[in-house]
Amino acid sequence: MTETWRKKAGVAWEKAKRAPALACRKMWRVGKDDPRRAIHAVKVGLALTLVSMLYLLEPLFEGIGQNAIWAVMTVVVVLEFTAGATLCKGLNRGLGTILAGSLAFLIEFIAEATGQVGRAIFIGCAVFIIGAAATYLRFLPYVKKNYDYGVVIFLLTFNLITVSSFRVSNVMRIAHERFITIAIGCGICLFMSLLVFPIWSGQDLHNSTVNKLQGLANSIEVCVNEYFSDEAVTEAREESDDEEKSCDEDPIYKGYKAVLDSKSTDETLALYASWEPRHSRHCRYPWQQYVKVGAALRRFSYTVVALHGCLQTEIQAPKSCRALFKDPCVRLANEVSRVLIELATSIEGRRHCSPELLSDHLHDALQDLNKAFKSQPRLFLGSNGSQVSNMLAVAAAQARQQKEREEATGGGGGVALSSAKTDTSALREWKRTRSKKESGERKVLRPQLSKIAMLTCSLEFCEALPFAAFASLLVETVARLDSVMEEVEELGRVACFKEYKRGGEDDVVVTVKCETPRVNVCLHNLPSHGVD
Amino acid sequence: MTETWRKKAGVAWEKAKRAPALACRKMWRVGKDDPRRAIHAVKVGLALTLVSMLYLLEPLFEGIGQNAIWAVMTVVVVLEFTAGATLCKGLNRGLGTILAGSLAFLIEFIAEATGQVGRAIFIGCAVFIIGAAATYLRFLPYVKKNYDYGVVIFLLTFNLITVSSFRVSNVMRIAHERFITIAIGCGICLFMSLLVFPIWSGQDLHNSTVNKLQGLANSIEVCVNEYFSDEAVTEAREESDDEEKSCDEDPIYKGYKAVLDSKSTDETLALYASWEPRHSRHCRYPWQQYVKVGAALRRFSYTVVALHGCLQTEIQAPKSCRALFKDPCVRLANEVSRVLIELATSIEGRRHCSPELLSDHLHDALQDLNKAFKSQPRLFLGSNGSQVSNMLAVAAAQARQQKEREEATGGGGGVALSSAKTDTSALREWKRTRSKKESGERKVLRPQLSKIAMLTCSLEFCEALPFAAFASLLVETVARLDSVMEEVEELGRVACFKEYKRGGEDDVVVTVKCETPRVNVCLHNLPSHGVD
Repeated sequence: MTETWRKKAGVAWEKAKRAPALACRKMWRVGKDDPRRAIHAVKVGLALTLVSMLYLLEPLFEGIGQNAIWAVMTVVVVLEFTAGATLCKGLNRGLGTILAGSLAFLIEFIAEATGQVGRAIFIGCAVFIIGAAATYLRFLPYVKKNYDYGVVIFLLTFNLITVSSFRVSNVMRIAHERFITIAIGCGICLFMSLLVFPIWSGQDLHNSTVNKLQGLANSIEVCVNEYFSDEAVTEAREESDDEEKSCDEDPIYKGYKAVLDSKSTDETLALYASWEPRHSRHCRYPWQQYVKVGAALRRFSYTVVALHGCLQTEIQAPKSCRALFKDPCVRLANEVSRVLIELATSIEGRRHCSPELLSDHLHDALQDLNKAFKSQPRLFLGSNGSQVSNMLAVAAAQARQQKEREEATGGGGGVALSSAKTDTSALREWKRTRSKKESGERKVLRPQLSKIAMLTCSLEFCEALPFAAFASLLVETVARLDSVMEEVEELGRVACFKEYKRGGEDDVVVTVKCETPRVNVCLHNLPSHGVD
Repeated sequence: MTETWRKKAGVAWEKAKRAPALACRKMWRVGKDDPRRAIHAVKVGLALTLVSMLYLLEPLFEGIGQNAIWAVMTVVVVLEFTAGATLCKGLNRGLGTILAGSLAFLIEFIAEATGQVGRAIFIGCAVFIIGAAATYLRFLPYVKKNYDYGVVIFLLTFNLITVSSFRVSNVMRIAHERFITIAIGCGICLFMSLLVFPIWSGQDLHNSTVNKLQGLANSIEVCVNEYFSDEAVTEAREESDDEEKSCDEDPIYKGYKAVLDSKSTDETLALYASWEPRHSRHCRYPWQQYVKVGAALRRFSYTVVALHGCLQTEIQAPKSCRALFKDPCVRLANEVSRVLIELATSIEGRRHCSPELLSDHLHDALQDLNKAFKSQPRLFLGSNGSQVSNMLAVAAAQARQQKEREEATGGGGGVALSSAKTDTSALREWKRTRSKKESGERKVLRPQLSKIAMLTCSLEFCEALPFAAFASLLVETVARLDSVMEEVEELGRVACFKEYKRGGEDDVVVTVKCETPRVNVCLHNLPSHGVD
């Protein structure tokens, strides 16, 4: 017993020893991910020290007095990470205070006429009605979105003044001081957030849009490359079966993850950005258009998710079938990803993108895929398995010979046909699972049932069907890309982006920027297996 | 001039007259959508009145004194919509206050040793360091998620006590009173939120999970029905081109919309629910499992979005091709949607779902689709268009004859083949757009370019390809459904759901509940066109 206790204590001690280092590393990473966080922390510290001086320094304290504490509270509550958020909260706080003050004086004016008891009852009723009404108002979507904090402050100030007025004779002074101190607090917050290393929500929104475009470009490219390098597919599938965590490190998932759940972030950033002063002299920054681009990107990303699903699904087209269409598919994916990166670069540089760069190659790539389909007319023939397999083998062999003629390397396009498990064995397994279930063993309740059912079916299904889905989804991405391009162009128009210069400096920069990430994708994100 | 002014004034007056009615209607709808909102508003009003009595009633006031105002503030800030959120905020506020009080006394203890000036400097430094450190701490994801409000209150109280201590001699009394009043405020909030018409986050999470399952079931059913009733598809496509707004009323979109962006809502609800006292005596409610079910549903919904995309895309399989596989596809979709509704019903009733109901019919439906593919072996042949069209016409005619033999009605499965625009005309249009662009007219910059490019390509593409994608995605939904079923079963296991009774009352209820919504879908959401 003592042994086990000592062991446990030892483990706990080890953990406790490691905890500070772990915490430090986490803290460090928070700052390293975004150094502006450290800057913001210092800014808050500075603002608090500044506002505390109202209390600490004799001459300042005499002017404002005991209520200086409200200024401290205001700074703690109002100073937010970005300038837009601070402005939004500060103005809400100011507005709420003024409105509540006015209303409280009205109530006070009426209450004065009645006696002490009547006054208490009147104040109680007013508190109830205003409290309920203001709380109900907060449920209105428009109020919730823009003025939620303002309504809370309104309620707070109203109660403060109304209730205080019952005991304190000079309420006017309370309200006045409260307003002055809140104004001082807001002033310090605005000074800190707008003039000392300002952090703009608009800039964040802009950058996140660029990042999302780049992430999606990366996803599509890696996804198609993985689909056509067979080892990777099976590997990925096995991994995803084994541990769900590997999902987070999947470069495809990482690329579109940020886009999928970006709705609330985008809308919050756009809301705060709309409070920020405009940066450019010529035209306002159209934050709503960024939200629209974000929505188009989300719609685009759903297709990418479905495309990724083709990699993970149990039903896979045979390798030979995939190998036949590898080149045009990879080319189309590269074009789509190139267009996305071009869009990202154009937004990043706040300039229009070149119309030719966008569509010419994309069109050619589509034509290529089309030609490839035409050159293999007998592929999508869904008769019995062996016949298809034979045909696929012949076609694949032809393709390989042609390839070998063209280049000496050859690559990994072997004609290893999918090892067809016999239907009977799968069916037998399924029936065994079922009979167990019938006999009351509830613990193994259909964990893999539909998987087996699908295996049974999929072997007889038209084998090229999954590939058709993949190709069709790839073409669908082009259709969705169109709406993304439209929104980005609209953004460029409304935000007065710079004109595109044909053959100018910009063009050169673009070409370089386009190439670099693509190489990175192949080299760094897929280190274990070459891209053929 | 006066005329136009008068007109404008008239319009403005009309608008102003209508504004109150509009506002009232909006207010009414907020309450009608969720009557608990009105209850919550009344609760807040009551709590505020109660807490104001501390100030208004003589005997209570004498006990607590001037600082009673902190109790009012606490009620305004802490009383949230659900019990979990109130508990979370209240405990955060309490914890923050205690910690800040302790730290402030430590600082005070050290500061006492120095003189007046040294003390001011020391306090200033402490405010800066603690302010910056606490703000930095708020960026840690774990702290941000669970204790964000607590850190803010910590900072607030710390500054309040530390700064006040410089001027006020008896800081101990301030801290003590602040703590007492906050405790009273929190007490009233907890009483109101836990005992008077409590609103549980856990219940909300539970209900939203059920709703999401039902919404997805509805989406899939309507989606597949629309895909196979041709008028609907073209109609929907034209509408979506004309106005984006109609998107919101699309029953398919409405079904999965709530699921797509549910991540942050789910996580917030689960967080609050984890603070709530457990409802059942036997086991804790596993809120994290609900989040997992939500994640599985989101993954499922991405496939539904892709399926919906098949309806909206420019590239459509010919009607005749679709008509061939209508019955098995509709049946499979019905089975998937039935399973989803069965899962929803089982969660709603907090009982396990019947294993047979889940998989048997689904398996049969998959087999049906498989058979259908086998019976049309020559369909997925991607040779030149006319040949395919002829073949499709023959196949469709055969299918129609067979159908007419079986039933007299016949339905809307006409063999009107897609009107094939000639490639040349589309290409010509594309080139015209391009030459315009080249000559410098930037305004028409590639608005429809890639659409035209796709038309050019799609006509030559294997015509059955889009349908193959649709069918494959439909099969993919079954695969994703599997992970949803697994998570729901795990939920049932962890949350100690009731056992499933074979042939018992529950079973009957299930059958009835399964049927009703399906009829609703057909009758109410698709009133313009029957489901054949």
